[in-house]
Amino acid sequence: MNYKKIDQKDIDFLLSICDKDRVFIDKEINEDYWHDELAGIERCPEVLVKVISTDEVSDIMKYAHKNNIPVTPRGQGTGLVGGAVAIYGGIMIDLSKMNKIIEIDEENLTLTVESGVLLMEISKYVESHDLFYPPDPGEKSATIGGNINTNAGGMRAVKYGVTRDYVRGLEVVLPNGEVIETGGKIVKNSSGYSLKDLIVGSEGTLGIVTKAVLRLLPLPKKAISLLIPFPDLSMAIETVPKIIKSKIIPTAIEYMVKDVILASADFLGKTFPDSSADAYLLLTFDGNSKEEVEQSYEKVAHICLESGAYDVLISNTQERQESIWSARGAFLEAIKASTTQMDECDVVVPRNKIAEFVKFSDDLQKKFDIRIKSFGHAGDGNLHIYVLRDELSQEVWDKKLHDVFECMYTRARELGGQVSGEHGIGFAKKPYLNESLGEEGIKLLKNIKLAFDPKNILNPGKVCQ
Amino acid sequence: MNYKKIDQKDIDFLLSICDKDRVFIDKEINEDYWHDELAGIERCPEVLVKVISTDEVSDIMKYAHKNNIPVTPRGQGTGLVGGAVAIYGGIMIDLSKMNKIIEIDEENLTLTVESGVLLMEISKYVESHDLFYPPDPGEKSATIGGNINTNAGGMRAVKYGVTRDYVRGLEVVLPNGEVIETGGKIVKNSSGYSLKDLIVGSEGTLGIVTKAVLRLLPLPKKAISLLIPFPDLSMAIETVPKIIKSKIIPTAIEYMVKDVILASADFLGKTFPDSSADAYLLLTFDGNSKEEVEQSYEKVAHICLESGAYDVLISNTQERQESIWSARGAFLEAIKASTTQMDECDVVVPRNKIAEFVKFSDDLQKKFDIRIKSFGHAGDGNLHIYVLRDELSQEVWDKKLHDVFECMYTRARELGGQVSGEHGIGFAKKPYLNESLGEEGIKLLKNIKLAFDPKNILNPGKVCQ
Repeated sequence: MNYKKIDQKDIDFLLSICDKDRVFIDKEINEDYWHDELAGIERCPEVLVKVISTDEVSDIMKYAHKNNIPVTPRGQGTGLVGGAVAIYGGIMIDLSKMNKIIEIDEENLTLTVESGVLLMEISKYVESHDLFYPPDPGEKSATIGGNINTNAGGMRAVKYGVTRDYVRGLEVVLPNGEVIETGGKIVKNSSGYSLKDLIVGSEGTLGIVTKAVLRLLPLPKKAISLLIPFPDLSMAIETVPKIIKSKIIPTAIEYMVKDVILASADFLGKTFPDSSADAYLLLTFDGNSKEEVEQSYEKVAHICLESGAYDVLISNTQERQESIWSARGAFLEAIKASTTQMDECDVVVPRNKIAEFVKFSDDLQKKFDIRIKSFGHAGDGNLHIYVLRDELSQEVWDKKLHDVFECMYTRARELGGQVSGEHGIGFAKKPYLNESLGEEGIKLLKNIKLAFDPKNILNPGKVCQ
Repeated sequence: MNYKKIDQKDIDFLLSICDKDRVFIDKEINEDYWHDELAGIERCPEVLVKVISTDEVSDIMKYAHKNNIPVTPRGQGTGLVGGAVAIYGGIMIDLSKMNKIIEIDEENLTLTVESGVLLMEISKYVESHDLFYPPDPGEKSATIGGNINTNAGGMRAVKYGVTRDYVRGLEVVLPNGEVIETGGKIVKNSSGYSLKDLIVGSEGTLGIVTKAVLRLLPLPKKAISLLIPFPDLSMAIETVPKIIKSKIIPTAIEYMVKDVILASADFLGKTFPDSSADAYLLLTFDGNSKEEVEQSYEKVAHICLESGAYDVLISNTQERQESIWSARGAFLEAIKASTTQMDECDVVVPRNKIAEFVKFSDDLQKKFDIRIKSFGHAGDGNLHIYVLRDELSQEVWDKKLHDVFECMYTRARELGGQVSGEHGIGFAKKPYLNESLGEEGIKLLKNIKLAFDPKNILNPGKVCQ
């Protein structure tokens, strides 16, 4: 791609619209901005701008569009697929200072926020109003803009769905700098192609989300977690379709194995309530009364015991729930701390195929002589499987990772799955998306990208480019 | 547009792929196919093909693409905006014979169907398996393909959301005849731009939906309706934001007025349980136990009485519920039978703006000396407002309808609303979509259309063309 390089004139333009303490050039740019959370893909942007308004974003895009400069939007950089790395250099727009909560509307059950607000701030804020924003990805320090751009799912997708289901409206700066609003504080919409749903999950390649109107629910009055030890992982996961078939829908169904739990407890310096078993299901139920929640979990507890669970540990104190969920929240960090480098497979398969897929990927450890760790959302079919480099040389690592991933993505496809459940395609997963969608599907994606960004300046080299 | 006219060679091709009793030419084509439910827009297709397989649809599209022939897909023709009218002639593809229920999957809670299956068949089928397909548009004889193409909402959107939220995967024949699958039996997906969500609500202009994987829920064990008489409509509708604010979410909140109820009762030859009041709210609550449902509705009943309701009529027998909901189901037909011709405004506004909008549109009756009837989904902000022609001359009707609609759509926009909540844009509502989206928005829609259909042969002249 033949982009214009940043020169002094471009910097002068940026300084004319932003305060100088928000514009950073070349080596002034903190290394954190060179990569995302997995750090496998690195490139320093030519200039970094920490924007504070939609107008600034619009002005920058108009300028970049006119001058053919690539622009990479970025939130907190917690992604895992290189989506927020400036692989062609150019301008990086950091949206994390656009972090105002604009309005809570209790009559329409909506929250309007700037896109740099953190997920953890949203839940804290709405819960203080006795309201509930259900999407619950593990990474609470991600921005809502990032969540929208990957259509993040999280733990509660089993019962409540994913980020897409809670985005009512968006303000978006297009690649040409024009600002559009799509959707709004409305429950239904059938007014032309859903631009909102196209932007959700588009990983910053079609437009830059600057504001969002989110849908809220009343906060459930009761929630309870069950930690259920099983003799082995297959037995644990094979129980999940039985739970779903029983017509009880838990809020969350996570699976976890002993060594990941121990690593996480170590990492946090805390003990986990139980680590006697090899594998666990962690279930949550919520509702508006104790009776309603009990009615649901009693039936499910019974199914688990019938399916071979050792026990059902009911966690109904705040303290105990926190010790379990904080361990769950630290799995990624704990695995990362246990090796030199890692990469992740984030496939989603139909939920009755998870057991088969987990077993398949587990077996690859022996086949390729490499460590693989996993945990994930057993209730919604979305797995997080980490391949660990440990002491492998660059060459051996590259080869093994490639071969292991080929096996995993091929198998996921055979099982009716998709490349990514919630982390997106970014730069790293493009080859697998190509294989999965085929020629006709990729052609459509490329055409859609052109429909929004004919000069291919917004987050180029990602998703389908 | 310069399309090829159908000639004998084209007919011979169609006869080579379909049985001859499924191919109809010019005047052989039943007049029902010339228009949709509102009949304001008429055109006879040049040839009608009743397809029975995806392969047939694919073959026809390949041929039409090569030969530059317009194609209009159609389900049951229950639309209200001319979306399924062949306004450029060409081939009409009737999908209503593709009506097989392919698979119910109780482990993944999905139903796979061909797109010609009727909504009423889906609910009957899944409920016999103790499962639930929540979207509940009034027109039960519509096809699921039609519902997907307009992103139909229906009564239960207050609690459960709209059709989009229940489409997990689609098989789609593209304008060039290629067949793609998007999504699947999966709960999460972040694998490139969501083609599924772009097709949902695209009114047959981007591809022809031939199969769908629908998401099901466990069937709620209890449901109850409350019919709540109010002294007047404003008082009834102004109660809705108070209900939402109370953090209880009913399954449905409909509003209705006395003369529409009486017309519907007349039309059906049945009596309605109560017609003493000028205006009513009709609420439904569902849940898994009597206690859970009662707990919800008691609080709401109290709010209604405090807000001026005369009474709260609890309808807990099957018979009584049916008499209410069958009257509700016949509103459209009853209004239609009361006049010579009518057109509909299907705007959606934030739910706390409904009272204001209904009052505004009611006042237009006097201002323009024309009859206007309305009913609608008070809980989700989606109104169905009918402007009646009665004995007006063509010229006066055209002028008044135009002026009344201009007022309504302008006001909806001012209130943060959108042109259509669930009936779509089709042919009839294009001017209002243009005004609502503005130049930049419409340009994006046109570009997206081109991304799928560069020759503009699939359902041309609709939505943004």
